[in-house]
Amino acid sequence: MSGTDKSKPGVVGGPAVILVEPQLGENIGMVARAMLNCGLDDLRLVNPRDGWPNPAAESAASGAGTVLEGARVYDSTRAAVADLHRVYATSTRSRDMVKPIVTPRQAAADLRAATGTGGAAGVLFGPERAGLTNDDTAVADAVIAVPLNPAFASLNLAQAVLIVGYEWFQAGAAVPPRDLPLAGSRAATKDELINFFERLEQALDAAGFLKPPEKRPSMARNLRDIFARADLSEQEVRTLHGVVSALIDRRDRDESQG
Amino acid sequence: MSGTDKSKPGVVGGPAVILVEPQLGENIGMVARAMLNCGLDDLRLVNPRDGWPNPAAESAASGAGTVLEGARVYDSTRAAVADLHRVYATSTRSRDMVKPIVTPRQAAADLRAATGTGGAAGVLFGPERAGLTNDDTAVADAVIAVPLNPAFASLNLAQAVLIVGYEWFQAGAAVPPRDLPLAGSRAATKDELINFFERLEQALDAAGFLKPPEKRPSMARNLRDIFARADLSEQEVRTLHGVVSALIDRRDRDESQG
Repeated sequence: MSGTDKSKPGVVGGPAVILVEPQLGENIGMVARAMLNCGLDDLRLVNPRDGWPNPAAESAASGAGTVLEGARVYDSTRAAVADLHRVYATSTRSRDMVKPIVTPRQAAADLRAATGTGGAAGVLFGPERAGLTNDDTAVADAVIAVPLNPAFASLNLAQAVLIVGYEWFQAGAAVPPRDLPLAGSRAATKDELINFFERLEQALDAAGFLKPPEKRPSMARNLRDIFARADLSEQEVRTLHGVVSALIDRRDRDESQG
Repeated sequence: MSGTDKSKPGVVGGPAVILVEPQLGENIGMVARAMLNCGLDDLRLVNPRDGWPNPAAESAASGAGTVLEGARVYDSTRAAVADLHRVYATSTRSRDMVKPIVTPRQAAADLRAATGTGGAAGVLFGPERAGLTNDDTAVADAVIAVPLNPAFASLNLAQAVLIVGYEWFQAGAAVPPRDLPLAGSRAATKDELINFFERLEQALDAAGFLKPPEKRPSMARNLRDIFARADLSEQEVRTLHGVVSALIDRRDRDESQG
């Protein structure tokens, strides 16, 4: 766990990403980008096929080069996880192995809990195509399986890292509340809203729209519902007043001249 | 929505993925793969830069070619969303737009609810680098922003589709339908909504409201935002047409008699 590192903006510690025998440098670079998107920076490589450092990884990592620079290389999966307290393996296949199988979301909650108490954690990802061997998976506490279309589950390495990292990031700070930017205005008060409703209804009464009388209450209520649902800002209520004024404007003018 | 299609295993219907002016064929192919991983197959392309079909897309889509074969091409964002009832835009940037901003998880729950009641939904993704324009975003009910490392948010197109699709898949079928009382009506289609917008704007142009000309686009967009947020039913759109007609009615009558 590397903690906060000023050279990697937004990184605040988190599980290590351990690539076991990754083949293509490009994929390692894409993994570095996926990691940094999710605020992760502890990259570990077990016997990368094309050696290390790898120019193809660097060119694919554009912007996330610092993650590659900090990567550590190991000659066995066991060595790569030696300092970790909690380790997950990833798999898209079921195997004859007695391990708990969890979703990325469940793993993320566990990882947050584990790292929150000072423990170090990591997630193992196998080589392209072949995936982790049973021996690699044996060092893990549990297996992460990504629930996706069972008839077409073909995430590439960086996508698998992205999903796990994305869930880790979401499990962090509480999910931000639904945020309605009011563009410089404040939410309309109920008073302002009702004033507008009454104004609109007066205009519609004058135009003979809210008829017959026995239907007026439900017609007016339906109209109010529309605008009530829109979470109007004070500025928007003024805009709607302007719309009503504009539409009836000529009429009034004509009447006063008539 | 295509529903179950035996040629696309695991596909059970779901939101359309709408790529606005995608540039690289390879990215379109990767999007098709990401979609099929998530059980999605309704791919729509608005003015793909390199035309359609695109051999680069086909080679990148390996295994997900059926999604490309079913892709439909449109000459405008509006045409691409015309039959949809609920539309999300995706963005990594905040803009001066009064739209609800939701996470992929919140959007997934909404999308499940919307499609669960028979509505058709879609998610807009902008061109590589540039992202969606304000005009594209204007047709959307809400904006999806992916909460990731704010100091390094650089998902590529297929990754953004994957995150949204992944959340849609995770949301499963357990989400109860959105409890929007449609009072015997169905959700308005985007086409019905935009027809109303245009009608209202014509009326306001005639009344001299949308002035000066340089402010017309933002004034019109602000008005559209208000009604877009209200989740209008088809019946409500007809009511609003009636309101506009009523307000301008006397004026027209006076004019025709004058």
